Amino acid sequence: MTILSTDETLAQDKQRPTDPIIDLDVHETFTSWNELLPYLKNPWRKLLEQGAWTPPSFPFAYWTGHGLNRADSHPADGTPAGSNFELFREQVLDQYPIEYAVLTGQFMPGDLESQYEFASALGSAYNDWVLEHWVARDPRIKTSIHVAPQDPQAAAREIHRLGDHPGVVQVMLPIGNRAYGDPFYHPIFEAAQQHNLVIAMHHADPLRSALGKGRYYIEWHVNVPQGAMSEVTSLVINGVFDKFPALQFTIVESGWSWLPHLLWRLDQNYRSLYHEIPWVKQLPSKYIRERIKFSTQPTEDFSAANWLRLIEMLETDRMLVFSTDYPHWDFDAPQESIPRELPDELRRRIFYKNARELYGKKLG
Amino acid sequence: MTILSTDETLAQDKQRPTDPIIDLDVHETFTSWNELLPYLKNPWRKLLEQGAWTPPSFPFAYWTGHGLNRADSHPADGTPAGSNFELFREQVLDQYPIEYAVLTGQFMPGDLESQYEFASALGSAYNDWVLEHWVARDPRIKTSIHVAPQDPQAAAREIHRLGDHPGVVQVMLPIGNRAYGDPFYHPIFEAAQQHNLVIAMHHADPLRSALGKGRYYIEWHVNVPQGAMSEVTSLVINGVFDKFPALQFTIVESGWSWLPHLLWRLDQNYRSLYHEIPWVKQLPSKYIRERIKFSTQPTEDFSAANWLRLIEMLETDRMLVFSTDYPHWDFDAPQESIPRELPDELRRRIFYKNARELYGKKLG
Repeated sequence: MTILSTDETLAQDKQRPTDPIIDLDVHETFTSWNELLPYLKNPWRKLLEQGAWTPPSFPFAYWTGHGLNRADSHPADGTPAGSNFELFREQVLDQYPIEYAVLTGQFMPGDLESQYEFASALGSAYNDWVLEHWVARDPRIKTSIHVAPQDPQAAAREIHRLGDHPGVVQVMLPIGNRAYGDPFYHPIFEAAQQHNLVIAMHHADPLRSALGKGRYYIEWHVNVPQGAMSEVTSLVINGVFDKFPALQFTIVESGWSWLPHLLWRLDQNYRSLYHEIPWVKQLPSKYIRERIKFSTQPTEDFSAANWLRLIEMLETDRMLVFSTDYPHWDFDAPQESIPRELPDELRRRIFYKNARELYGKKLG
Repeated sequence: MTILSTDETLAQDKQRPTDPIIDLDVHETFTSWNELLPYLKNPWRKLLEQGAWTPPSFPFAYWTGHGLNRADSHPADGTPAGSNFELFREQVLDQYPIEYAVLTGQFMPGDLESQYEFASALGSAYNDWVLEHWVARDPRIKTSIHVAPQDPQAAAREIHRLGDHPGVVQVMLPIGNRAYGDPFYHPIFEAAQQHNLVIAMHHADPLRSALGKGRYYIEWHVNVPQGAMSEVTSLVINGVFDKFPALQFTIVESGWSWLPHLLWRLDQNYRSLYHEIPWVKQLPSKYIRERIKFSTQPTEDFSAANWLRLIEMLETDRMLVFSTDYPHWDFDAPQESIPRELPDELRRRIFYKNARELYGKKLG
């Protein structure tokens, strides 16, 4: 037996033919808010031009100079990480066998606490900017429609405006302080279903855990999956899956190792308390297994044996999809995040097949 | 091979010698608030006598006549479930080989949003009432000190007042809207450590998930473990385990199948972000494995094989303790909640040994 160093193993991996990858979470951004000006009408445009508005901020100071991002993702010209298409192409698209990368953005119009019409206008401007400056540049890039869910009718209009664009595969809803099962948000689901768009959810800065924001960034970050747990439960309890039978969901960047617990807990509660929610027609786990995909990032430090134990607990290999989270600090590189020891078919499901089935013909 | 019916199997089980059990969660209560009057001084006593105060309420209507409780736990005289000692003795203490049952209460002084001194007075009155009306009646009964954590100095005084009572084994903190790692609450930990008391935590009515209370009871109930996750994270991040090196914790009635996920996620984040919290000296999972016990109830619907997978993921059989949650609807009967197929030693750990080690000499 020849023992290879880690570097040699990685080099060998790089040489062998690899299966295609779909990356469900790339956080592109602009170099400054001014890039949105051409896509905004007055009175909104003036608010940006006059510096009359301060974007929402995140309360934590970081202990590293690169803040939330991979140190090498900062363009040499000092522009923000994630704002340089060429660097992204070099570091992700051409670095790995990426067949498609789905943009998820960094700005979330849902984070605005006031002036909902302004939030919707910013969302539309951002969507137009992304289509022109990112999606148009590479056929491997698909994107999400950003809407302001605080105004569901406006969100639905935006979905109708862009929902059939060939570069658009999903609607992005921030997991912040809204449980989207609430019928208040159903106009968004109705519009998305009409255009065969996936509903994607990703945590956003306003998210708090059950006991608040936390005193440090690490505390906030550890608790992030709670938002995803609450969204899954909210969708189930409010009967969203039967009301919108064609709608598919994906929850990105909240991990997945908590999923067996949630499936069991939901089923156990449903068996005892289904009288309370007669519009829910079957076991919650069945809806979730068939209708929601979870991105693996950020993968946690557990063994391949534990990966397989978790998959056995889930009773399906169809729920996981891959994402890198570029350019954030906890970026998942394909070779290092999904253990090589996993069966080839499971790896293919995670890296490619499940996402391919999720987006269907939208990927062309 | 003789096939036995479920009834026959259960009957056989009942005949065979059983290992002792420690039940960590019994929700005793009074028949009415007036029972506390002899233990209250003015001006607090008058508030109850004059009906000047409305206890906090829980917003959900229930679809069953027995509400939150086992149908057979309601005393024939119409008094509240959990208020009749003899019925509890018959249904739990004498029904199973209970060596000790730890009372956890239903009233939580921490639930009061205002008038903190009144909350502390109610807590003290309740503690005195429990010691006289429950603990004094059976040597198998131990109890928790109820305090108002919103006033940590008052809570510490109450712990000093009752901390060495032989019937007292722990301090109860409600998991509602407070993350107890915050140094604001450390006077409570300091006092508990001085008296060798365990810190127990149990969810309470004010608890909300990351996205709010939920629209139905089932939604609220499914999301309950998020409070426990946030408490565990808060204790770790704030360095509580090194600051109070002798203090042990137990989190009751939030389940445990989410624990592997949380250990992994905490460790992964610690490896990358430990600079932010230099007072945390080792991997979070190590602190948690050694210092926190989790009660198994409410056990979820998963197989013995999955129990064993989860125990392998935890890498220890020392974290789980047993509880019934009497008289609540999701009561766990010993024979039915912990699978018979589990190894005997693991069952003994869950039913008895881990709790015995947790409380140490406090159990006599």
